[in-house]
Amino acid sequence: MHAIFQYQDFFINYLEKQSITKEPKNLYDPITYILGLGGKRMRPVLTLMATEVFNADYEKALPAAMAVEVFHNFSLVHDDIMDDAPLRRGEVTVHEKWDINTGILSGDAMLILAYQYFEQYEPVVFRDLAKLFSKTALEVCEGQQWDVDFETRTDVTIPEYLKMIEYKTAVLVAAAMKMGAIVAQTSEENAALVYEFGLNLGLAFQLQDDYLDAFGDPETFGKQVGGDIIENKKTYLYLKAISFSSNEDRDKLTTLFSTKPDDYSGKIEDAKQIFNISGASKATQDAIQEYTSMAFDTLEKMNIAADKKAILKSFGENLMNRKV
Amino acid sequence: MHAIFQYQDFFINYLEKQSITKEPKNLYDPITYILGLGGKRMRPVLTLMATEVFNADYEKALPAAMAVEVFHNFSLVHDDIMDDAPLRRGEVTVHEKWDINTGILSGDAMLILAYQYFEQYEPVVFRDLAKLFSKTALEVCEGQQWDVDFETRTDVTIPEYLKMIEYKTAVLVAAAMKMGAIVAQTSEENAALVYEFGLNLGLAFQLQDDYLDAFGDPETFGKQVGGDIIENKKTYLYLKAISFSSNEDRDKLTTLFSTKPDDYSGKIEDAKQIFNISGASKATQDAIQEYTSMAFDTLEKMNIAADKKAILKSFGENLMNRKV
Repeated sequence: MHAIFQYQDFFINYLEKQSITKEPKNLYDPITYILGLGGKRMRPVLTLMATEVFNADYEKALPAAMAVEVFHNFSLVHDDIMDDAPLRRGEVTVHEKWDINTGILSGDAMLILAYQYFEQYEPVVFRDLAKLFSKTALEVCEGQQWDVDFETRTDVTIPEYLKMIEYKTAVLVAAAMKMGAIVAQTSEENAALVYEFGLNLGLAFQLQDDYLDAFGDPETFGKQVGGDIIENKKTYLYLKAISFSSNEDRDKLTTLFSTKPDDYSGKIEDAKQIFNISGASKATQDAIQEYTSMAFDTLEKMNIAADKKAILKSFGENLMNRKV
Repeated sequence: MHAIFQYQDFFINYLEKQSITKEPKNLYDPITYILGLGGKRMRPVLTLMATEVFNADYEKALPAAMAVEVFHNFSLVHDDIMDDAPLRRGEVTVHEKWDINTGILSGDAMLILAYQYFEQYEPVVFRDLAKLFSKTALEVCEGQQWDVDFETRTDVTIPEYLKMIEYKTAVLVAAAMKMGAIVAQTSEENAALVYEFGLNLGLAFQLQDDYLDAFGDPETFGKQVGGDIIENKKTYLYLKAISFSSNEDRDKLTTLFSTKPDDYSGKIEDAKQIFNISGASKATQDAIQEYTSMAFDTLEKMNIAADKKAILKSFGENLMNRKV
């Protein structure tokens, strides 16, 4: 096994050796651009790690890890069009740098390219990877559609929200890990358990994202703190606050989340105060802890050596203690 | 073997039995809508026909035929967004009936759904179908990008144009037929030959489209005659006319194709006249004939019974004599 930064290096090395840029340039340049913007490469690293946890060489998993990363970036390109987002990882988005049509078409090509990376495996592994990938990719689309639908709904429930982030975010983390299990050809039971581990970790990760967006340290967070509040996003924090608050605070929060003032500093402070006094902040931290614990429980059931379990556990702990 | 209208019926029957509409409705309803708009179903029919030409039951090929049709409709949904097209098959396009974001996301889901139809085959057939599909789908994206690029270029050559229509249109016709060969598990040689047959037929089909767009009978054509001229599309007819014309007519045509007058009847008449006197119309008809002949020559090399060859030949002849 290797350290996380080593898996990142292995992956980035592999990524940089791919010569994706060919003709027509207007189709392939945006793909090279978005894949080169960086990021933590969390999903491909999980694929490589899972492969070694199940006693195979990470090198065997590089094409599958690449498929996961290409798919993730495909979803960013299309989501950024839908959200009309100007920036991604601090750089201009594809549809801003080129145009919307280029973003649509290059995104489509990325989805297809992701499948092509599985062609490097023998038929049964290819079939298993591609099946898991299709199921996951469709769920990510469904999650994105729920997210869009929720924007115009005022009656979103906590279970609905959890289902949405499960589909939009957690299933890809889970699938990234299960792909490692498939490449390593471990038992179906181990593969199912690592999927479960990734799913709970992914849920904890997204709730952590919701929490940090409001309560992260502006010095280390990297993004605009309070971004979700500015955009009136109905996150876990918001939904819990609505459910826990007195009538007065509920009305105040509903009103706050129906405006987009130019000077949003007061709005952010007011919302955060209600998140705190309602107990929504505490409930969010509890939920993060709960999903992390569920992930670690699943780990215990896995038929792998103790030192391998320790590595996955330490990855989970790092993720939950992150500031960005 | 069956008649073409029978294969259409078999396919439509299968299509109607698919319950694609599930939750979230805003993701799946547009898919049911576009797949229900009709059309000739030429591509899936070719998959079913090819399967029986190579002595397997068409029923085995229904999922592959469905994948081809779902992919074709995916490309229509995304292309219609890029072209800002209000109508498709005489009905409102998906992005007009819903919105652009819905068109993007439902299109993405269709591309994934297409892959899922291959899961009904055993691993080796699955791998062969998915590989051919990915290669083809990527080429279709490349063809679409060339088409977009050509809009703003004035130096497009005939070979470039032929490459564009090969990628944008012909490779999917070719792949639809080869999928039938893969499902029937015929020889690799037969599979390569039927691909070649489909490719040449697809090229002839697209050139026929270009020709009919200008010279089709308004009574039977179904679309606006002269639509390509109105839109200043640099089709085969246009490129040949530019290459064959006197300096005077070349200038006239270039000028005609740089304006979009509200009253376009004169523009259409002038362009068609230059297409005719330059010899471009004749050259287009010759090219259609040539690609059709090449397709029929390929047919002769195929290791199948004479009556099967006759069926494919008659399909090609029908296609070339069409008025719509």
